[in-house]
Amino acid sequence: MIKFIKKRSKKVGLPPGTLVHIGEKKNEKIKITIIEYDEKYLQEKEVKSIEEIFPLKKKPTITWINIDGIYNLDIIKRIGKEFSLHPLVLEDIVNAEQRAKLEDFVDYIFIVLKIPYYDDKAMKVRMEQISLIIGENFVISFQERGEDIFYLIKRRLKSTRWRIRALGADYLAYSLIDLIIDNYFIILENLEDRIEDLEEKLVEEPTSETLHIIHLLKRDITFLRNSVWPLREVIKILEKGELSLIQEATKIYFRDVYDHTIWVIDTIERYREMITGMLDIYFSSVSDKMNKIMMFLTIIGTIFLPLTFITGIYGMNFRYMPELRWPWAYPSVLIFMFFISIGMLLYFKKKRWL
Amino acid sequence: MIKFIKKRSKKVGLPPGTLVHIGEKKNEKIKITIIEYDEKYLQEKEVKSIEEIFPLKKKPTITWINIDGIYNLDIIKRIGKEFSLHPLVLEDIVNAEQRAKLEDFVDYIFIVLKIPYYDDKAMKVRMEQISLIIGENFVISFQERGEDIFYLIKRRLKSTRWRIRALGADYLAYSLIDLIIDNYFIILENLEDRIEDLEEKLVEEPTSETLHIIHLLKRDITFLRNSVWPLREVIKILEKGELSLIQEATKIYFRDVYDHTIWVIDTIERYREMITGMLDIYFSSVSDKMNKIMMFLTIIGTIFLPLTFITGIYGMNFRYMPELRWPWAYPSVLIFMFFISIGMLLYFKKKRWL
Amino acid sequence: MIKFIKKRSKKVGLPPGTLVHIGEKKNEKIKITIIEYDEKYLQEKEVKSIEEIFPLKKKPTITWINIDGIYNLDIIKRIGKEFSLHPLVLEDIVNAEQRAKLEDFVDYIFIVLKIPYYDDKAMKVRMEQISLIIGENFVISFQERGEDIFYLIKRRLKSTRWRIRALGADYLAYSLIDLIIDNYFIILENLEDRIEDLEEKLVEEPTSETLHIIHLLKRDITFLRNSVWPLREVIKILEKGELSLIQEATKIYFRDVYDHTIWVIDTIERYREMITGMLDIYFSSVSDKMNKIMMFLTIIGTIFLPLTFITGIYGMNFRYMPELRWPWAYPSVLIFMFFISIGMLLYFKKKRWL
Amino acid sequence: MIKFIKKRSKKVGLPPGTLVHIGEKKNEKIKITIIEYDEKYLQEKEVKSIEEIFPLKKKPTITWINIDGIYNLDIIKRIGKEFSLHPLVLEDIVNAEQRAKLEDFVDYIFIVLKIPYYDDKAMKVRMEQISLIIGENFVISFQERGEDIFYLIKRRLKSTRWRIRALGADYLAYSLIDLIIDNYFIILENLEDRIEDLEEKLVEEPTSETLHIIHLLKRDITFLRNSVWPLREVIKILEKGELSLIQEATKIYFRDVYDHTIWVIDTIERYREMITGMLDIYFSSVSDKMNKIMMFLTIIGTIFLPLTFITGIYGMNFRYMPELRWPWAYPSVLIFMFFISIGMLLYFKKKRWL
Amino acid sequence: MIKFIKKRSKKVGLPPGTLVHIGEKKNEKIKITIIEYDEKYLQEKEVKSIEEIFPLKKKPTITWINIDGIYNLDIIKRIGKEFSLHPLVLEDIVNAEQRAKLEDFVDYIFIVLKIPYYDDKAMKVRMEQISLIIGENFVISFQERGEDIFYLIKRRLKSTRWRIRALGADYLAYSLIDLIIDNYFIILENLEDRIEDLEEKLVEEPTSETLHIIHLLKRDITFLRNSVWPLREVIKILEKGELSLIQEATKIYFRDVYDHTIWVIDTIERYREMITGMLDIYFSSVSDKMNKIMMFLTIIGTIFLPLTFITGIYGMNFRYMPELRWPWAYPSVLIFMFFISIGMLLYFKKKRWL
Repeated sequence: MIKFIKKRSKKVGLPPGTLVHIGEKKNEKIKITIIEYDEKYLQEKEVKSIEEIFPLKKKPTITWINIDGIYNLDIIKRIGKEFSLHPLVLEDIVNAEQRAKLEDFVDYIFIVLKIPYYDDKAMKVRMEQISLIIGENFVISFQERGEDIFYLIKRRLKSTRWRIRALGADYLAYSLIDLIIDNYFIILENLEDRIEDLEEKLVEEPTSETLHIIHLLKRDITFLRNSVWPLREVIKILEKGELSLIQEATKIYFRDVYDHTIWVIDTIERYREMITGMLDIYFSSVSDKMNKIMMFLTIIGTIFLPLTFITGIYGMNFRYMPELRWPWAYPSVLIFMFFISIGMLLYFKKKRWL
Repeated sequence: MIKFIKKRSKKVGLPPGTLVHIGEKKNEKIKITIIEYDEKYLQEKEVKSIEEIFPLKKKPTITWINIDGIYNLDIIKRIGKEFSLHPLVLEDIVNAEQRAKLEDFVDYIFIVLKIPYYDDKAMKVRMEQISLIIGENFVISFQERGEDIFYLIKRRLKSTRWRIRALGADYLAYSLIDLIIDNYFIILENLEDRIEDLEEKLVEEPTSETLHIIHLLKRDITFLRNSVWPLREVIKILEKGELSLIQEATKIYFRDVYDHTIWVIDTIERYREMITGMLDIYFSSVSDKMNKIMMFLTIIGTIFLPLTFITGIYGMNFRYMPELRWPWAYPSVLIFMFFISIGMLLYFKKKRWL
Repeated sequence: MIKFIKKRSKKVGLPPGTLVHIGEKKNEKIKITIIEYDEKYLQEKEVKSIEEIFPLKKKPTITWINIDGIYNLDIIKRIGKEFSLHPLVLEDIVNAEQRAKLEDFVDYIFIVLKIPYYDDKAMKVRMEQISLIIGENFVISFQERGEDIFYLIKRRLKSTRWRIRALGADYLAYSLIDLIIDNYFIILENLEDRIEDLEEKLVEEPTSETLHIIHLLKRDITFLRNSVWPLREVIKILEKGELSLIQEATKIYFRDVYDHTIWVIDTIERYREMITGMLDIYFSSVSDKMNKIMMFLTIIGTIFLPLTFITGIYGMNFRYMPELRWPWAYPSVLIFMFFISIGMLLYFKKKRWL
Repeated sequence: MIKFIKKRSKKVGLPPGTLVHIGEKKNEKIKITIIEYDEKYLQEKEVKSIEEIFPLKKKPTITWINIDGIYNLDIIKRIGKEFSLHPLVLEDIVNAEQRAKLEDFVDYIFIVLKIPYYDDKAMKVRMEQISLIIGENFVISFQERGEDIFYLIKRRLKSTRWRIRALGADYLAYSLIDLIIDNYFIILENLEDRIEDLEEKLVEEPTSETLHIIHLLKRDITFLRNSVWPLREVIKILEKGELSLIQEATKIYFRDVYDHTIWVIDTIERYREMITGMLDIYFSSVSDKMNKIMMFLTIIGTIFLPLTFITGIYGMNFRYMPELRWPWAYPSVLIFMFFISIGMLLYFKKKRWL
Repeated sequence: MIKFIKKRSKKVGLPPGTLVHIGEKKNEKIKITIIEYDEKYLQEKEVKSIEEIFPLKKKPTITWINIDGIYNLDIIKRIGKEFSLHPLVLEDIVNAEQRAKLEDFVDYIFIVLKIPYYDDKAMKVRMEQISLIIGENFVISFQERGEDIFYLIKRRLKSTRWRIRALGADYLAYSLIDLIIDNYFIILENLEDRIEDLEEKLVEEPTSETLHIIHLLKRDITFLRNSVWPLREVIKILEKGELSLIQEATKIYFRDVYDHTIWVIDTIERYREMITGMLDIYFSSVSDKMNKIMMFLTIIGTIFLPLTFITGIYGMNFRYMPELRWPWAYPSVLIFMFFISIGMLLYFKKKRWL
């Protein structure tokens, strides 16, 4: 996660509206897909030239323009010009290190969202940035990676079974946002699996590596939490706000998304508390294990103390030590020492120190 | 508690209003009970076909429809259609992993509540979800488990002693909610018993298992707390809010419920502080016990040091060591060593190290 | 403190307004005292029959009815009926496990307050519940215990020196509440004494019992804190609120009480911080003491190491060890060992390890 | 700091407005100084009889009455009567254990402020209470101690260089309050010196006394913090509030004082964080030091182990041990043991355990 | 950072508006640069006499006056007089120890900002104070150090490529503030590098110096955090506030700056959490390392125990010990002891204690 700030300083001192990509390049190619539909009609095509999308603007149908890859700054600039987007909006679209936010420009709403995914290679949670422009009869979505994350929405659009085509661009936006929130549930599952694994390890055998895993998990949870809180604010505005482009009937759906977001936040907070508890258990069980070993070793030492003392006694060179001349003295002493050690072992067992 | 997120991801990408049960199935069967009453009249019956309940809607009497089991999605759908419930409401009813919430649809109020119970098998606190639809002259309640938790309300309705039958559907809803809050008191008792047991164990003999129990308790308390806070908000709205379906006279009763909720929250917070204190005591007493044992063993070792040293001296092979030839040297040395060890024991006793 | 929840569950499922006493019974008898006064006139009597108090209601004089003991539910019910108190108010009066609260019923104000006292036997702070009904020309106070806590107010009423008799029922209520807050100062003194004792013990000789005392103190402080915060809110309403029964001139007195409450809260918070610091000192000094002992013992052991080693050397059986035959070898070795141990002792002293 | 609560309980049950001095008596004598001025004229005198100050009230000049010592309750009472101060105001003036507060009585503003000073004898930060009465053309200030803390303001008043005499009583009040806040800077310097001393001690040689100093410092900081927060609120009201006695032009000066107060709070919070960090370092370095000693001793013990073992071997009495008869065996063994110990020392050095 | 309070107390008791420089002197010389421009015209010059800048005030062009060095109090005073700045504003400009703040004087806006830089010598983050006076057609900026931090803005002004010259003084102010915030990104990079270094050190070999570095880092982060929070408030006012000098179109740019500030705060908070985690890891790994060494030494000791015991047995002087006379006894015992030690080593290895 750390590291991206470096890229940020490239922009120091540049005038506002200068398009500079910030963040890791997650995808090189650019792919533009258009879906134009109304209740009875639907057309999907992948466009090669950016100019193909401009005539659709004036059509009464609803147009969804999905742009995969935000690294071709020229194309972004031309879309911005055609749809009269504010220069700062364009700057925000290509800056992939934003917090979730919503800005209302009356003619259109600009939303930045973060979609989490688990990067198996880096073994951590990462975020893809999705920017949405919601107009009266169009939605433009910008994605960073080439993954077809909106596949399910496309399928729903193509089917006539659902009401989605009968409703406006705001409902389409809702569907996209709902899908994004759903991705948080998938990440929470991943976290939950990792927490469970950790709990088992904690009980079985805590090593210093376990501590490392706890902290990785904690970092992921903190990262996720930092992303969800601004998201919550965005959706709060969509649900409550006086946005003229969001119809009254759609607001109820956003309320539903809002509930989901709160649920995600609650779950994350619960995980945070669990991690704290795990740290407690880890430290306690590590020191417990250590103490048990030290105690074991000390007890072994204590058992040998009287034995060595006895050998010391009969190693003394006094002339008058009658025992030394007894024939059975040596085996008797050996047996005596044997019983002493047995007695001590029993005593320590009884005290539960062994 | 952990684990239910898995079920949640089943819904990823589904359109809103799709009924998918989320959460553990706590009960397979469905049972619909109707109680129809006014001040003078009361009829209770268990219906077999869902159609039987629809005619009651238009009657001036108050109707309480209690549905046990939320897993038959068809029935939920038909009720939703007949009472013109919003698709999202139906979705929420069958999703048993919700936070408590209240939504006002003017014609009806939709409330989700959580009722806690202690699962003896899993040895933890769990939540059953209760959904309420409050209309002008009807209340529909949806329960997850087959337990007849509203038994006491039914009994009160049947008796003519109480004013409940003279009052409206909002008072019936109040009675149900009041009963749900009362269940939190029962769970608090359970927690209190467990805290008391724990306190005794902490004083007597803290083991690593004690730590485990503390954390289980902490998890239950956190879980309960997370459920009560949204509940508080729901009841706050009922008490203060401008809900047209709640009569002025009933609000005072909701204020009473609100006070109880605050009391529950206070008690939970107090338990949380106690648990934190217990962790302190646990860690301190474990390390105390450990230290005492190590000190005991070290003292034993220290007592043998001079004794072994003395045997070492008389084990030396110098030709000119006059003591070696004295007749009483050996017993004198033994007695001398005896007094040395007694002296050291007394010294350590006096210092309170033993 | 723990334990009273048990009693609370007696009420589960009972209709609102059912009078059930909750909490420990602190006093069996009931005693009703009436003080009727105006500027020129004052009459105090203990009534035997509850009916005696009803005629006073219509008189222009101010009537203060003090009821000691809230366990006779019949009497409470009859007072409630006569003064047209809401059933929930009566329920709250007999439920001695309430938070402080204020409810405005326009005709009368209902206030629940907690007065702290130190229970010498149980060695902890406890709370008595005082309920006040403030009407236009009457105040009814309900106490749990038989203690005559309002003795000072009665004395002030009887004297003509003070303005109290010239002022209304709201001023009487203020006087009672002021006295209740004053009781918090007495409890704070008690806490302060205990903290001072503890500080001395911490410096002198911390034992595991000290930890227990710290936690008892912490529990008392937390308990007191939980009681004062809702009290603060109650007095805030009295000072700021739009209560028609509180005259403008009296509000300034409530502002004074409010200042006292804030002062109490500040002091409690300061105590909380002190307790936290004490825990730090306790743990540090316990481990310090332990470490010093272990170090002492280890140093003793270290001093014997070279000595025992030397006896070992001269205990070897080599044929050619010239020293063994020297006449002064034995005493020389003894003296040598003596100087070694003295040297080591000096070294450890110099290093301040002893 | 602790202890003053005792004095507070003297007031339990007394009617409001009863003048009882609370707090430590810091000064026995009473001294009343009057400064009467307008733009062109200034007269300062120390009055002997309280009556001398009353005629000034009606003059158009601005009068500043400074009263040193609040223990003569009669004088306070007569001033109160003459300036028609509310009885509660008089009670607050003589109660030296107040939080900072502001009360607007329309005719006058009553302000309680705390001025910190370092008590060298008790070695802790203490507070003197300053009460201000701000009227239209007069300011009355009450001080506890005999220290002439307002000396600088008097000097400024006497000089014609500054605008202070051209401005109203509210500006005079501002000057006094500004000076009081400035005293916090002096105390912060004192704290800063002590923190620096502590940091050096922590690095050099932490002892258990260091922990004590850390806690004393923490207590002072907490004490200061508790005093500044209510001060902040007071000055906030002066800056923002709708106080009719404060002119618009003076408010900008209070904004400046407000900024200083925030700066003081920020600095205190920073000190608090530093103290927490110091506790960390203290505990870590104490245990570090302890561990190093124990490790040193254990290593010494470990070096003697093989040596003693070797002496043990050649102390055995086997008949057939060829080495025992070799002429050079004894010195060889001694040299061998010497190299073993050197080898072990080098090994431990290399491992950096020594 | 500590130490500057000393300088603050120089001002105690001085009247408001007295110019006294507070803070470290970072630069001795004073340098005044003027840039006068409109859309078509730009002139930059360094003025020698302060009088040169006054005539520009009445010109319709936009004038940017940049003053390097705030230590020449006379010049500050004359600028203040000419532009009719409030005495308190001048006092704030020369006091380099301020929090960020904004004050609206209708004719002009006064802003204090802090720009962070890393002081390589002192090895810590420091702050330079930048004061801005924004008028209708002029901006005056005051810097502490001689560094030409606004170099990039000057370059942008000179180029005709950017819109900056077409826009007003408020847009110029925005550009300056934006650049200041950008400097926080540079500092965050520095912090990130240091955190990364620290993480490596923590894994490789934590020493007591590592703890010191962690605390230095923590102090820098806390310092930065304390500076950013008031900055956030300033920019919030610029974005939201009703400042008449800020045009509607410019507010959108300030919203952008606001987003950056929030991002900075988020990052700082994340660093804070990481530092806390590092402290955990540090303490755990230090005690881990210590424990491993002590365990190693104890195990060595334990291995020698039975060996020394055996030598003790055959060092006893019993007459009848048959083994002593066996020819192969001595080598057998040596071999036996060898196998015992090998066996113990294997046992400890298997248990993973070595």
